[in-house]
Formats: sequence, structure tokens, C-alpha cells
Amino acid sequence: MDIQALRSANPDHWARAAAIRTLTLDAVAAANSGHSGMPMGMADVATVLFGNHLRFDPKAPHWPDRDRFILSAGHGSMLIYSLLYLTGYEQATLQQLKDFRQWGSRTAGHPEYGHLEGVETTTGPLGQGIANSVGFAIAEEALRARWGKKIINHHTYVMAGDGCLMEGVSQEAIGLAGMQQLGHLIVFFDNNNITIDGTVDMADATDQSARFAASGWHVQEIDGHDPAAIDAAIVAAKADPRPSMISCKTHIALGHAAQDTSKGHGALTDADQLRATKEAYGAPMGDFEVDPAVKAWWEGLGQRGAAARNEWDAAFAKLSKAKQDEFTRSFALEAPKKLAATIKALKKQFAEEAPKLATRASSQKVLEVINPLMSETLGGSADLTGSNNTKTGDLGVFTPEDREGRYIHYGIREHGMAAMMNGMALHGGIRPYGGTFMCFVDYMRGAMRLSSLMGVPVVYVVSHDSIGLGEDGPTHQPVEHLALMRATPNLNVIRPADTIEVAEAWEIALTEKATPSALALSRQGLPTVRTEHKTKNLTAQGAYVLKDAEAAKRQAILMASGSEVSVALAAREMLEAEGIGTRVVSMPSMELFAAQDEKYRKRVLPGGPVRVAVEAGVRQGWDQWLLGERGREQKAGFVGMDSFGASAPAKTLFEEFGITAEAVAQKVRDLLA
Amino acid sequence: MDIQALRSANPDHWARAAAIRTLTLDAVAAANSGHSGMPMGMADVATVLFGNHLRFDPKAPHWPDRDRFILSAGHGSMLIYSLLYLTGYEQATLQQLKDFRQWGSRTAGHPEYGHLEGVETTTGPLGQGIANSVGFAIAEEALRARWGKKIINHHTYVMAGDGCLMEGVSQEAIGLAGMQQLGHLIVFFDNNNITIDGTVDMADATDQSARFAASGWHVQEIDGHDPAAIDAAIVAAKADPRPSMISCKTHIALGHAAQDTSKGHGALTDADQLRATKEAYGAPMGDFEVDPAVKAWWEGLGQRGAAARNEWDAAFAKLSKAKQDEFTRSFALEAPKKLAATIKALKKQFAEEAPKLATRASSQKVLEVINPLMSETLGGSADLTGSNNTKTGDLGVFTPEDREGRYIHYGIREHGMAAMMNGMALHGGIRPYGGTFMCFVDYMRGAMRLSSLMGVPVVYVVSHDSIGLGEDGPTHQPVEHLALMRATPNLNVIRPADTIEVAEAWEIALTEKATPSALALSRQGLPTVRTEHKTKNLTAQGAYVLKDAEAAKRQAILMASGSEVSVALAAREMLEAEGIGTRVVSMPSMELFAAQDEKYRKRVLPGGPVRVAVEAGVRQGWDQWLLGERGREQKAGFVGMDSFGASAPAKTLFEEFGITAEAVAQKVRDLLA
Repeated sequence: MDIQALRSANPDHWARAAAIRTLTLDAVAAANSGHSGMPMGMADVATVLFGNHLRFDPKAPHWPDRDRFILSAGHGSMLIYSLLYLTGYEQATLQQLKDFRQWGSRTAGHPEYGHLEGVETTTGPLGQGIANSVGFAIAEEALRARWGKKIINHHTYVMAGDGCLMEGVSQEAIGLAGMQQLGHLIVFFDNNNITIDGTVDMADATDQSARFAASGWHVQEIDGHDPAAIDAAIVAAKADPRPSMISCKTHIALGHAAQDTSKGHGALTDADQLRATKEAYGAPMGDFEVDPAVKAWWEGLGQRGAAARNEWDAAFAKLSKAKQDEFTRSFALEAPKKLAATIKALKKQFAEEAPKLATRASSQKVLEVINPLMSETLGGSADLTGSNNTKTGDLGVFTPEDREGRYIHYGIREHGMAAMMNGMALHGGIRPYGGTFMCFVDYMRGAMRLSSLMGVPVVYVVSHDSIGLGEDGPTHQPVEHLALMRATPNLNVIRPADTIEVAEAWEIALTEKATPSALALSRQGLPTVRTEHKTKNLTAQGAYVLKDAEAAKRQAILMASGSEVSVALAAREMLEAEGIGTRVVSMPSMELFAAQDEKYRKRVLPGGPVRVAVEAGVRQGWDQWLLGERGREQKAGFVGMDSFGASAPAKTLFEEFGITAEAVAQKVRDLLA
Repeated sequence: MDIQALRSANPDHWARAAAIRTLTLDAVAAANSGHSGMPMGMADVATVLFGNHLRFDPKAPHWPDRDRFILSAGHGSMLIYSLLYLTGYEQATLQQLKDFRQWGSRTAGHPEYGHLEGVETTTGPLGQGIANSVGFAIAEEALRARWGKKIINHHTYVMAGDGCLMEGVSQEAIGLAGMQQLGHLIVFFDNNNITIDGTVDMADATDQSARFAASGWHVQEIDGHDPAAIDAAIVAAKADPRPSMISCKTHIALGHAAQDTSKGHGALTDADQLRATKEAYGAPMGDFEVDPAVKAWWEGLGQRGAAARNEWDAAFAKLSKAKQDEFTRSFALEAPKKLAATIKALKKQFAEEAPKLATRASSQKVLEVINPLMSETLGGSADLTGSNNTKTGDLGVFTPEDREGRYIHYGIREHGMAAMMNGMALHGGIRPYGGTFMCFVDYMRGAMRLSSLMGVPVVYVVSHDSIGLGEDGPTHQPVEHLALMRATPNLNVIRPADTIEVAEAWEIALTEKATPSALALSRQGLPTVRTEHKTKNLTAQGAYVLKDAEAAKRQAILMASGSEVSVALAAREMLEAEGIGTRVVSMPSMELFAAQDEKYRKRVLPGGPVRVAVEAGVRQGWDQWLLGERGREQKAGFVGMDSFGASAPAKTLFEEFGITAEAVAQKVRDLLA
């Protein structure tokens, strides 16, 4: 690449883009780790995007109608840190660049949501950003339809590399975006032909332009170092009603000795090469040095955004007070005031009716009441709508023709669904929930973990939560998935036992602001176990005494969650009849119980009695409550699964795998003997 | 659809295909569950494929050079069960069809590998079959190059639906298959425009033919009910050097009242409709009844395969005895005799050299010795070759130009890699191993679980196994992943502490026949902790006493795995210096330890001393050894993670998160106080 030719063709542009490149080189050198090549390759695109198009105001990083800029190729984090510093975001200080990748700094190795204003989502695990961005774009379309163009009308810009596009989740996102005709979504493909192992052709021969076009995208191919071409492509992309992909032919680590090589992908720290690169660029030679005129130009860009924001403020002020409050409430993730009373009334009704229902069906009953109250919910399912019971009567379906529809048919795309829900939640103004079978948590783990890491209150509706699924067999029967989810930090796993706990679970999930929830729901019908109405949300305590010993002194405590609570109750009946005083503890959520104070936990799980836990999953996770918390090995037992399931009717499976009231009662008798 | 026109156009073909359709209807009706529509839609394609092309012998279902038939749309399991029954596979009895989806039958809801001969892989979780099939096709190419065309030369045929193609993993598979030019792979796309939620256009507008073509596939579009067109397409696909996709326009539930609807996707059990459908077909009306002439035709198909198999037997007999033995050994998953001695010698050398190495680097050292011994290994990485240390000097790279290369650059495709490895292992003759960062187990969980469920001894090399990864930050630092893998039935999770345990871990992984292994390896350098040479594979015991109390009576037992074993040893030094007798137990594998007898476990973990476990992951899973196995809550502690990690140098992270020898020693002192 002839750097001199690039410099002389567009000297001003060059100097501005070079600032991104030199800051990247300096920060990576200081950290002695990181990825230099991506920011150096995409600096021209970023400069044109920010310079001519991006609607942003560094003074108001949370302005709801800003354009969203998503760095899907998150390893190139110095690109976004440089941009935020250059344009003058308050938190993006020069010191932060110097502390790149150090303990306590805002400038983590990969961009982390919540660490630094201007970072819209956590990226690094490849493919997530592009899938998030489809969620951002859906949120924008939905909110534009609801609030009008004067309040919501912005673009989502994404930079994605070969890695993002090789990850399967990208196809799920591309497919839905094309079908949904998300015209405000613009993806820049950093087409540099380099991955960590070598050139892309070592692993892929895909014509990415043809691939996007096959899913209904508007596609352009440009020289990613030609500012005029970049600008023209963005103009054309904005004008086209389809989502746009701009394939930008770039040189990774442009102008460095490692240009166009795998080495250029990583940390370029050689001091001589660094100096030579800066010289070739004609850039200031000092560490972290930026020409003051260049810095001033970058800082001036915010003025365009500030003007737009002033217009927006004026438009917002013209909304009715009620609308303003509703908008603010939904973006602040505040539940509507009516929610609590509505849930209470529903619980009372359920306690009186005592329905026998699968908890997935209970969940739909609760949603039928909640969705009309909370206009910010956006439901969906990965092609299991009738099984997950996620669609309610009032929602309508979100399509290109109906942007007010609040239900999304995600297709058979669990990972994409989860990543898109993250994007919607991060956009703000939307509370997404989405359903699949619990076993397919496996497919969406990559994005679920990021919900937890970022602390976005997405709700995962995971039905068919055990061998109770029956005939579909072990591929569809979760066994280890409760343990797997419980092992994940900052995830509320709630497995309600009946309709009333389902209502409580939804109340918890929809009032969370920084923790995602997974609601584990049964396929099979379950009796109401909470026949006595309590206004308090007992599920929020994680575990509680459902029924205490009556016949005699308490000799046993049975713990269970979800569909096994009724099994425990039946076992209790047997034991009480034999004079063995037995308490049943319903434990819908271990995380929430662990968060209670010692005193409460001790009241629920006193030392002394034998303890038997019953859950149609693996034991891992239960030892904390069986052996810990005043428990003892000699007085503890577990009734559950220690293998994969099988294909047969559910009733047969529970019998064959020994998850029955009789087995629970026998375990107690054995422990007492 | 005019059924009468179809019948009269090809009466013989029609009757044969109708047998699949009526058996499906009858079995689903008997089970009162299942999926009728897919087998009914694809019966014509299956009939032509089996009738004119598939190289199979029902009398020799394990014949290595058979064509592989993969039903990626696994919910249509009655298609494959019907075919196996009709063609006369011994295990596929009529009774099995009658026991469809019942406890103990071979005819599970979804096809389960190992339950019924002729079922090549477990499918049902969508997208897995098509990705498996790329692994089958790679195995075929690799073995053809090694053994010659007379020994290995067959095709892999796949049936995939819209669901498989919407799942992201399919894109990963399609991309690699195209680049690798897998000419013996032929995918039939069941293009019926129906998913569970409705028509495909509710969630997707992708032109699948264009999408496959974009990745370098040969693509054809045909009427999936026209036998001549089906045959011509298969002939053309076989002739083309590229992988082929044949888009078959079909009608789901053809000829039934529910044809072309979502309802048709599911269980069609209405007796009147069933009768009407059989009448329209002109099929025998009895339950499970097949016209004897039709059955005879199906059974006759095996003769073509039997002749081919006789030819194959003759060719195989011409191989040298040594080659025959090697072929048989590799297909039987027997390790070569030399392996044990080689590992022993390597351990001795390592014990003497006592290198300080990251276990990922140790792993490469071991592989450098193993790969030349075991021609059946096929290594690879999801674009992290230099980081996972998975490539050894002798392997060469598997490409269209070099099919003898034994290393695969999978690209940034973890899920695809795992699913392809399953396919390779299932094909036989190959022992695949593949690497990625441990955090990205999240991306490949869907396929990893199936390794465990099917019992295929794939080896997952998961490096960068903790916060020891350092600056890349929490998106790349596993915290819950050891727990998550340990929760999975039939998966050996091995986290070796040093070079010697790495050698033992590989020996275990490569001698397993029915259990996959995950080797958790460190990024950071670790000292040799096993400085005394033992010929016995101590890692195979799961846990063992690494160093016992010396200074005084044993008051404490420290347990650790991987990189934290040296932390425990350092803590022991401190404690011993204070007169606190301390044992260190290295616990590389909880599963293997749990499988030891009580006596051994008690010897390693006697009751009495305080117990502290140290591992840079979450506690879940450790309670079994801390509180169980004679442990007690008051005398047990854990030093590890209870949150996500952070971005900083590794040493800083271990200090900030308190995973240090000092913290471990202090925990012991506190528990003894």
C-alpha cells in the first residue's frame, strides 16, 4: 500500500484517521498486549462515519435518539477508545488510553458495556456485536413506530470482521435482519482477508457480498481507505430501504511492517517499527501525541450532534406529560406502578381457582395480564411459540408491514434471538423476552452469558425444563442445564412450582434492572401448590417453607423446585401419615435464596432434620443446601438425574428414573434409619 | 397437490414411497406423538436415493465403506425408521415401529446413535446433522487419501430442513465444506416452506440456493416429488467436484388434510384423516401394513450393497496384514500398543527436566510425540492454532490440495468444529481433537453435549482456562465453565497441573472409546509439580495425594486443579513452616475421582482435617468434595471466583481476586482457629 499516495490524496482526512492509528499503536505498546491491526485498518471508515454521518453528542452519551456505533470486532477496542477520546467523551481521558487493559481502567481489553460511556455493548466474543445490532435496529424500528420519527429516528452502524461473519450467530442475525428489512442498519465488513491463523482462504471461500444479498440485504463493495468511496457508500446505504452491508477492502495494520499479515492482527509493540510507521504516516512522534488541529476537528464533530440533540429536546418537550413520563419510565427500566397490584390480584385469583396447569401455560396467563400493562415488553420465540406459550392476544406480530407488533418470530435461531434481545435491552425502551426449550440454552449460551456480564435484564423463557418433556427424548430433555445456568454469575434462575410462583417469577424478572432471568417452565401439567393466598412475593426470597411438619416433631426437610415441588408434597403426605414430621421447602431460585440473610436462611433450613432434595436435574448445585447451611452428609439425600434422559411418555420416565414421591419418602426413611 | 397425478405418473415409485408415508402415519398415531409431515414430504427423495444410489448393506450396517445417510431434520425420525425396516435391517423390526417413542425401544423420538443400527448420528437439535455430515465427508476424504479408493470411497447424503438451515451452525458447516470442496457431500434441502410457527417467510427471506452458491457449493433446484428429477439431480451432484445442495420443493404431509401447514409438521393422529390419506395414496389400509411386493422391492435393494461389500472385502483382503491391522485398530478405537510406553518415557523425561510451561504448551509437547504414533488423530483449532498449541510439526494441513494433511483450520467456528468432530468420530477411523479458548465452550455446547450423549471420544482442547488469560478480560475468561462441563453426564473434564499430568490426560483422552474429554489448559506458565516420576497414570484416578503433611500431624487438606495446584503447594509450604501439617491433593478430574472406589477416595480425603479447595472458577461442584466425602461445613473453605473476571495482567488478577497462596493459608488458619 502506498501510504504517501493516500496521504497526499486526502491530507486532512489522512491526518485525522492517522490519529486513531497512532493512539492504537501507542496504547498497545504501553499495555504490551492488544490488537493493533483492526483499528489501523478501519480508521478511514471510522473517520468518515464519525466525520460526516454519525449522530452523536459526546456531552450526552445516553441521549436516546443517538446513532448506535457497535464494534462487533471487539478485539479492535482501541478503535472505539481512540474515537471516544478524540471526540471528547468525558470518561475517555488520555490517562484511560495510557491505562489500556490495566486493572480498574475503563479501557478493558475488549469494550465492556457499563465501563465507559459511548461503548454501547460488550463485544469480543465474535459475532455477538452484529447480532446485537440487529436487536438495536429492531428496537429502533419498534420505538419509531410507537413514538414517532421526531423522538426515535436513528441508525445502527456496525463494524464486523471475517471472524464475526464466520460465526454462525451472524447468519442468524443476517437472516432475520433481511426478512425484517431493517433499513436503518448498516454493517461495515472489514474485508482484510486476515484471521489469527492466516489468510481467510485457509478456512473460508465465501463470497460475503453474495451471502448478504441472498438474505435480502443491500450490498456495496468499496476501497475501505478511500474517504470519498466510504462517504458515498454510507449515503447510498442510508437511502436504501434494506439493511446495508458495505464490504470495505482494507489492509490490516495499514502502513506497519506487519501490514496484511496475521502478525498485524495482534499486538504490534516493536519500538522501531512503531517509529517508522508514525514517520510514514507523517504523524506526531510523541507517545499518545495528537496534532492539536486534528484533535480540535474531532472535538468539533460533537457540535453537529449537539444541534440535533437540541432539536430532539424540543420535540420531546412537546410530548404530553404522560407520554414523557412513559418514555422516561421505560428507558429507566422502571416497572409501571400498576404491576405490583396486578400481580397480587392475579395471585389471589389463582389461589382461589387452584388450576392444574403446565407452568408454561401459567406463564402465558400471566403474560396476558402483564403485556397490556407494559408497552415496553417485546416477546418472541425461536419457532416454538405454541410450545413456549410466549405470545399473548394483544401483542401483534412485528413485521416490515407492522412495526407496532410486539411479538417476534425469531425463526430457528436461539443464539441470534438471545444476542438480539441483548441489543434491544441495551438500546433502551424495550424489555425483551424470548422462548425456547430449556435444552437449547446450549445454543444460546454465548449470548446468555453476555446478558449476565453486561447486566441487562433480558428474560429467557425456557420451557420443557426436564424429562417431563417426554417422547422427544434426551436431545430435548435438559438434565445439566439448571446447574449450568446457576453456575453463571448474575443470572436469576427461577423454576416456579405453580401458577402463583410463575406470577411471582415474572414480577421479579420484569422489575430487575441489571440481572437477566431464566424462567424454567414445565411442559407437563402441575397442580397449584400455593393454595393459600399471600400478598408477599415469596419467590423473591428464593426459598420458603411451603408446608411444615404437622403430625409430629420435624424430622425431615424436603427441598424441591418446579415440577418436583408437588412430588415433595406427595412424599410429605406419606411421611406424615407414618408419623414422620416433614417440612417442604419450595426453592424456586437458589440465587435469590443465597442472597437472603443468614437468619432467614436458617429459619427455612434449620440444622437437625434430614434433608432430601428432589429435582429432575443433576445434583450439582444442591450440595450447598444439602450439606452446607447446617446440613450434614449422613443426613442428606438427593432424588434426581445422574444421566441423560430417554424417549418415552413423561410419566414413564419419572417412574423409570425414580423421581417419585415414593422414592423421596424412602430416601427419608433410609436416612432416619 | 394432485395425488392421483403423482400416482399414475410413476405407479411403482409411488407405492414404494407411500410405504414410508403410511408407516409414518401409523407409528405417530400409535405413539400419539411425533412428526408426520417431514417423512411424508421427503419420502420420494428417500425412495430414489435408496433405490438408485445409496451404497448400503442392511446385513452389514457397520461396513466402513458404506454411504452415510444423515437425517439432519431428526424430528422426521420415522423416515429413517421406515427405511431401515423396509430395507431389512435386523434391529429395525415391525415391533420397533409399533413401539415408536416408548420406553426401551430403539425407535426414540429423535434418531439416537447407538440405539439402532443404521442411525449414523443423533439428530434432533437442529443444524447438528448437517454439520456432522461435513465431518463425515472430511473423514471420508482423509481416509480415502490414506487408504486408497478401493478401501474408502463413498458419499455422505444429508436431509436438512429450513430449521437446520436457519441455525447458525449450518453456516459454519456450509462455509468450511465449500472451502474444502467436499465433493462427496450431498445435501437435500427439504424446501417445504413450513416451520412450527408458520410459513418460513414469517422469519426468513433467504434464498438458500444463492446462500450455498456464495460458499462455493454446486446447487440444483428440483421438484422433490418427481422421481426422475430427483435421480437426475443426484447423478449431477455426484459428478460435480463441489459439495452439492439439492433444493427439493416438497409438500409437508403430502396428501394429508394438513398438507402444507404447520399442523402437518407435528403429529397427525386423526383416524379419519389417516384413513382418507391412505385411500388417496392407494395404499393398504391395515395398520403398519405394507404391500408384500413393495416390501420385497425394498428388501432387494440390499443386494446392490451386498455386491459392493463383497468387492470391498476382496480389496481389503489384498491389503498387507499390517495395514489390515492398522485399519481395524483405528476403526475399533484401540490405541496403538506403543502409546503407553511412549507416555511413560515422556513423563520420566518431564520429571527430570521439570519444565516451567503453560499446560497448553505442554500439551503441544505431548502431541508432538503422540501424533506420529497415531495416524488416526486429526487436529484443528477454531482459528487459535498458535494459542491452543494444537498443531504439531508432522501433521500437514488438510486442504483440497492435500487430503493427507491432518490439521484443520476450522475458521472462527467453534460450534461447527465440535459438530464436525462428532461427525468424524462417528464415521470411524479418525480421532479428532480441536481447540478453542475455554470460554468459547459456550459457543459449542450444542455439539459438545451430543458428544457426551452419543459417547464419541472427541477431545476438546480448551486453553486459557481462567482469569490467567489476563488482559483480554471477562468476555474471554471462563469462570463457570468447569462447573458447566462437570455438570454434563459422560464428559471427562481434565484440568492438568503440569506437563506430566498433561501427558497423562492425553493418554486418558486417547484411550477412551465412549466418553469425550475436555482438557482445560492454562495460558500462563506453570511449574512442574510432579517432580518424582511414577509410571502409573495418577491422573486417571481423578485425584491423588501430591504431597502429604510432613512437619506435623495432618491438620489440613488442600485440594486444587490445574494452575492452582502450585498455589496450593506454596500455601502448604507456609503452613508446614508454621507447624500445620498439610496435605495437597491434586484433583485434575472430578469425574474420574468419583468413579474410584470408596476405599481409595477415603485414603485421599480422610475425615478430620480441614479442607480448602482452590480453583480459579466458581465453587459449584466443589461442595461434593469439601462438604461431602466425610467433609464438614465448619471445616471447609473455598478460594476461587464468585464473579466474572476483569481485564488486567494475570498476576494482578490473581492478587485482586484473592486467589493466592497467602489467601489459601489464611483460610486454613481461620478454619483451624
